Formats: sequence, structure tokens, C-alpha cells
Amino acid sequence: MPVAQDHQPPRHQAAIGILRQRFGERLSVAASVREHHSHTTTRIGSELPDAVVFAKSTDEVAEIVRICSEHQCPIIPFGVGSSLEGHVNAPLGGVSIDLNGMDRVLEVNAEDLDVRVQPGVTREALNTHLRDQGLFFPIDPGANASLGGMAATRASGTNAVRYGTMRDNILGLEVVLADGRIIRTGGRARKSSAGYDLTRLMIGSEGTLGVITELTIRLHGIPEAVAGGICSFPDITSACNAVIATIQYGIPVARIELLDPMQVRACNSYSGLDLPEEPLLLLEFHGSQAGVEEQSAQFSDIAAEFTPHPFQWTTDPEERTRLWKARHDAYWAAVALMPGCDGMSTDVCVPISRLAECVEETRNDIEETGIIAPIIGHVGDGNFHTLPLGMPGDDVTAEKIKGFTERLSARAIAMGGTCTGEHGIGQGKRNYLEEEMGEGVAVMRTIKQALDPQNILNPGKVIS
Amino acid sequence: MPVAQDHQPPRHQAAIGILRQRFGERLSVAASVREHHSHTTTRIGSELPDAVVFAKSTDEVAEIVRICSEHQCPIIPFGVGSSLEGHVNAPLGGVSIDLNGMDRVLEVNAEDLDVRVQPGVTREALNTHLRDQGLFFPIDPGANASLGGMAATRASGTNAVRYGTMRDNILGLEVVLADGRIIRTGGRARKSSAGYDLTRLMIGSEGTLGVITELTIRLHGIPEAVAGGICSFPDITSACNAVIATIQYGIPVARIELLDPMQVRACNSYSGLDLPEEPLLLLEFHGSQAGVEEQSAQFSDIAAEFTPHPFQWTTDPEERTRLWKARHDAYWAAVALMPGCDGMSTDVCVPISRLAECVEETRNDIEETGIIAPIIGHVGDGNFHTLPLGMPGDDVTAEKIKGFTERLSARAIAMGGTCTGEHGIGQGKRNYLEEEMGEGVAVMRTIKQALDPQNILNPGKVIS
Repeated sequence: MPVAQDHQPPRHQAAIGILRQRFGERLSVAASVREHHSHTTTRIGSELPDAVVFAKSTDEVAEIVRICSEHQCPIIPFGVGSSLEGHVNAPLGGVSIDLNGMDRVLEVNAEDLDVRVQPGVTREALNTHLRDQGLFFPIDPGANASLGGMAATRASGTNAVRYGTMRDNILGLEVVLADGRIIRTGGRARKSSAGYDLTRLMIGSEGTLGVITELTIRLHGIPEAVAGGICSFPDITSACNAVIATIQYGIPVARIELLDPMQVRACNSYSGLDLPEEPLLLLEFHGSQAGVEEQSAQFSDIAAEFTPHPFQWTTDPEERTRLWKARHDAYWAAVALMPGCDGMSTDVCVPISRLAECVEETRNDIEETGIIAPIIGHVGDGNFHTLPLGMPGDDVTAEKIKGFTERLSARAIAMGGTCTGEHGIGQGKRNYLEEEMGEGVAVMRTIKQALDPQNILNPGKVIS
Repeated sequence: MPVAQDHQPPRHQAAIGILRQRFGERLSVAASVREHHSHTTTRIGSELPDAVVFAKSTDEVAEIVRICSEHQCPIIPFGVGSSLEGHVNAPLGGVSIDLNGMDRVLEVNAEDLDVRVQPGVTREALNTHLRDQGLFFPIDPGANASLGGMAATRASGTNAVRYGTMRDNILGLEVVLADGRIIRTGGRARKSSAGYDLTRLMIGSEGTLGVITELTIRLHGIPEAVAGGICSFPDITSACNAVIATIQYGIPVARIELLDPMQVRACNSYSGLDLPEEPLLLLEFHGSQAGVEEQSAQFSDIAAEFTPHPFQWTTDPEERTRLWKARHDAYWAAVALMPGCDGMSTDVCVPISRLAECVEETRNDIEETGIIAPIIGHVGDGNFHTLPLGMPGDDVTAEKIKGFTERLSARAIAMGGTCTGEHGIGQGKRNYLEEEMGEGVAVMRTIKQALDPQNILNPGKVIS
């Protein structure tokens, strides 16, 4: 339910007035536009910005930031709004900068396997652009997110186990700072020891330290062959032990996903499958034809130690899609468990040796709490998601989910893990960040104050 | 030539007096000890600390830092002193904290492929500790550096092309801040989106933002098979084009090293080899037996397009060592070109598409400048080193080398690269950092001032 801002400080009005003169119809105060730009896909209610401005260039972003800075008016960078922890909300009002108009692929360097893009390019648009060159950008958080947003939240997804996260795949950024200065945090060299790692400082800072206006991103060659397969396991522990053995053995698995029995049941029902209602691992291997066949055979041998079920795999694209259907439809299968519901996705990440224990305890917690919450894991990284379901307006269930989410974060942290592997902190996980990082949050706050002394860059996110 | 500090501010004396009371014989003001702790392996003259204190625990480091902070006395963290840009010099005097006594491997988590260590553990000691468990730590900068020092300088080395750099292989750090507070920057989760990336901020900060007192590091399974081989090329461009094709093709090469003709000549002479005096690539592949054989065959095919010479390779360990002898002896072969000389190693990194051009221009510059400087590259990353040689006291050559090094950095930066791929900034490359990062250095300075307002943490390094 959107919450209207009931007051708009005069300094915001002043900034918006100047921006309107400068940007004309590219500034909007229409309620529908403001609502769209505070849209969150989670339990967190919308908080509307006072205005939305549609930027088309780095210089325009810098100009907007300077104007807002002069009037201490908050700035919220906006990509496609697919973030999950209230990252684009405007708790103090202010100006949402819509970066979708900055959607150009500026330079593909095929020999160097890198590309320079504007922040509004989405991952699917980038891959469409690259297809003819035999290159691809691997990171896939599910949604067709903007690359600027993915950098800002340190996104990853199913194949981070092989290709890394946004942290690992960005060579450098162009960033507009809180006072409108424009910096470049790195060049195109594959590695550098030159000074503080401003690139990594900006990645995951969720728009609170600067507005990302350009990215130089690593690419990868489209693999010659892809093998995919699935395997059921009698219990979560067996599935996790197979994953541990696979990683230890050094098999360069590209994806390794876990569905828990509730999610498998949902997929059977939604996608017309007849999978055993037991934990399911889905794997994908990238490489040469001989390489992916060898890796699939190696995993078959490993799996045989932990499950009576066979590992069914193929290098045929259509057959592979069929085997992976449960995973592709998983989100829709999950929400179909409760027609009309909201899915309130949350994620944690633990050392892989603790994964089975963490998933089992979470499974028990779900049952004891009396909620419906399928589990899907990117288990090669120890990262898993739950999708607790609740009907709009069902405050009792919402309260149960809140308590469940808190316990889940605390459980992951207690196991040496983190309260979020890939969704970020936003508004939703600030308390857990304190729990996880302790005095480290004070250091983050010091950095925030130094780089944004007026607290105008996406205030109320990451740190309180 | 060591430069004695000709003055020691009273506040340093006060701090050292308190430290002496506290640490007794573990504090030394002996000239030989102070000289050892400012030892640099480059052209930069030694600048001695006022005292050296040998720490044994995080709490002791925190206590030392608190005492020094109270008296505004500089602190220089010291590992094994193998850094190359004056990182352990004490231009303002102060206290060198020797961390070699903190040399315990605290916890090996074989299932998670990670290890928790104190900063004084060296990479060789860690690998000796791990050997029985089938695990290894891949990063190899040449010297048997301490892991704390390697993190502080964002070190890498020959196999970063496959395993990444210290940036990619550290999960979390424990750090003592400028006021003596102790923070943990991360847990053991493989990935995290929880807040600002303090781990990466500390990696490469060269002791200027905090003293690293513990590291949680990723490990890798020792590969089942290793193949190694060598191949000569008619010119640098052909060699670089073979590297580019190899990377684009997605062959997961573990090492890919380039020796230029001068270095090959030096190796022939020093190690009794008869390699063609042409550019030489040395490769290594890690994986299954079938995998490394396939990769070696694939590289043979690629190389055949660029050179008439065969790619000689093997999976036999002894034969592999023989083929790689030129690389193993390269440093000693280079300095043997000028008996009694100092080698003044420097490194840059460029996009791989510019590598041939950068190496060729550098080769020409070496000839025109009239210096002796073999080139070795970790060319899969676009990173290469030169080792200009000069006799002690030969100021004319030293001046020539200084000019050459400046031009080399400027050349790399102009090609979209960096003035240092793995050595760091230290004292030696501060001007080039300004050239490379522009306004970014102002941001680094803001962060430094926020986290170390008294400028006591390794002052005079990274930023002026």
C-alpha cells in the first residue's frame, strides 16, 4: 500500500522547481509515476518520492545531483525497480532519478572480453546485443534487472558459483558523487593494485555513496557445449554432501540449484511434472563437448554415493530445458500455492558445510511457524532463498513472516554466514546488518558521512 | 642506502617509552633491526622507523595502535619486507609493527575450502600446512610473502588468470583501525550483499586504513592433473594474439607467461638452455587428466596459427619442471646479466588487446634509453614486469630508469590500463596514481581522512 508523503520540505520544492525549469517534461510529479518509482516487490510498503526526473546522460545526472545537493534534497537512483528490500523507496521524499534512458551499449571490446555500458542497459538487452559476437554476460538474478541496479546491490544469481557476482565482473565504474563530481573508479585492466578499491566500495553501496552512470563489465565466451541435468536425493543433507564433494573435487559446475520438497511439490503441480517429492538438485556444466560430458559423468559418480536416484543429464538444448523446467517455473509454481498472494522473498548465505543444517532448521521453522515458504538454493555458494507467501491484508501471516525472516537472518549469521547473499540490505535488513557486522557498521557510517555529509544519497538505506 | 632519521619527535619518544614498558625485549631500537624493517627491494632508499615492536596477538596490535594513536606516532605494519614500492619505509619515523610472530593457521575448513590465518603466515607455510588435505592456496607473487602483506598490497602472480588475485580470494578480514578498534569485515559466506565491501576496501590499502590481524581465505582443491608447456613465437604480437585467442576460446588456462627475447637470452645463458631467442610463452593447465590433455591440444591448434614453432607440453612433473626452467630461474637469470646489480622491478597492466603494442613500445623505449631491462608478463591478465638493472651508485642509469618507469606508467594508463597490476603504489607510484585516477584520488583521501584523521597509519603511502 503506497504511503503518500504528507509533507514536502520547502527545500525539496525549491530543488524540484529548478529541475522542472531545466528538464521540462522529463520531470514528473504525477502520483502514478511516483508510485511506480517506489514500487517494491516485497512486504515493505511504498514511500513515494516527491518527483521523478528522467536522466539521459552523466552530465545530466551530475547536474541533478548538484541541484539537489544545494537544497539538501534526497536522491534515489532508479533502474527497473526489481530490488527486494525497499531500495528505491523514498522515506524522506526527494527526487527519484530514472536512469532507464541511459540504455546504450557504448563499446564492446571483444578481444578483451569487456564492454562499457550505461546503467539503464538491462542484462537481457546486453546479452541480445552481444549474441552475434560469441560473448555473454553470465550474471542472472532472475529479474531482467538494469546493470546499474545490479552493481548497486551486488547482485548475482544461479551461476555465480562459476562466474562470480557483480563484485567479480566489474572492471570499473563512472560514478556521480554527492556533490556532483564525476569520478572513474577503474580502467579496463584485468587487475590493478593502484590505490583503494573504489569500484568494490561502490558495488553494493545501493546508491548511498554515489550514482553509477557507467559500467565497464567483464564478458565471457559462450561455451562450446552446455550439459544440464537433475537428481533427486532422499534428504537435504545428502544433497548438500553431494554439492560439497562436487566443489571439493574441483568440478567447474556452472549452476547447482536445490529445490526443497515443498518447492518440488509446487513445481509438479504447476508444471505438470512427476518428480519425486524429495530434495532436487539441478546442475549445469559449461565447456567443451568432451569437458561437459566428463563433468556430468563425474557428478553421476559423486551423486551415486548419496542417493539411489540416477543423475539424468543431457547436452541436447531442448531436453535440457525440459529437465530444468521445474527451476524455470519455480517462482510461478511457488506463488501458485496461494493464488492471489504476495511472495516475500528473502535470502541468506552460509558456509556450505552448514548449509544442510541451516536449510533443515529453516524448514522446521517454517512448519512450526505455520507459513508456506518454499526454498530454492544456489547451493554451490551456500546461498538460499525462501519465498514466504501471504495474502494482501493478512497481517497475522505478515507478522509471522517477519519473525521467521528475523530468525532466518540470525541463524545464518550464527553459522558464520550473512543475512543476505544477493538481495542487499535496503530498508529491510538494516537491523540484521548491525547484528552481522557489529562495529563494522560504524566504519560504514564513517565512510557514508565522509562521502555524503548531507545524507542526500538514498537516505535510510543500508545504514540507519 | 639507509637514511637515518635525524630527529624523533618527543611524542614518538613518549609512545616508544610506553611500548617499551609494556613489551620489554619485544621492542627494539637497534639500528640493524630498524634497518631490516625498512628494507626495500627497489630503487627507493630506506627510511628507518624509530622502533620495531614484535606483536603476538590482535589485542597486542590494538594496544600498540592505541598507544601510538594517543601520541600521534606513525605505525608501519611489517610482514616479510618483500614489497617493491617502499611500502614499509618510515618517512616520518614511528613504530614498525612486526607481525611475523602472528603465524598460526587458526582453522582449516576443508568442506568449505577456506582457512583462517594470522597475518604472519607465509604462502609457502600455508601450502605446507594444507598439503595433506588435498587443498592449496594458489596465489604466488614470487616471493614467500606473508598473507597479511599480500592482502595489504592486493598481490597476485602467475596464476591469477585462473584463480584471481587476493581481492578475489579473501572472504573476510579482522582489522585494527587507527583508534585501536577491532572490526571483522566479513564472515565465511562465499558471497554477501550485506553493506559496504569493507573487505575489498582494506585489501590493497597498504596498511593506510588499518592493520590486518586475521584473514579468512579461499582455498582450492589440488588439481588431479597439471599439464605444462612452452612455445616460441616469431614476434610479441603473434604471441599476444595466441593468448587472446586462448582466452576468448574459454580455455581455462592456469598460467600463461611471456618472456621477451632479452629475458630468453638471459635464461639460455644462466640456465644452460638453447631456446630460440624469440618471445616465449609458457603455459600451465589444471584439471582432470583428460581435461588438461584436451586443453593442451586446443592450445597447440591455436598456436599453430601464429607460430611455426611447436607447442611442447607434458603432464609429467619432472619434464614439466624442465620445460618451465626458464621461468623458474628468470629473476636470477635477469640479474646475472649485470653481476652485482640491483634489479628495480616495476609492473603495469593493460587491456590484453593493447598488450603487444605496449610491450613493443616498452621494448623500443628500453633500447632507446640504453638500459638493460628484461620483460616478463603474466599475459593472460595483460600484466607485465620489467626488471631494469643498475649498479649500486650508478646515478646516471638510475635516472634513466626513473624516466623509463615514468613513461611506462604513462603508456599503460594511456592504453586504458593501470600503473601497477600487482606491486601496489607505496611511495614509488603516488604520482602515477594521481595520473591514473584523477579525482578518484580525492575520494581516497576523503576516506583516509575519515578513517585515520591523525594520519598515523603508514603515512606517506598510496596517497601523499
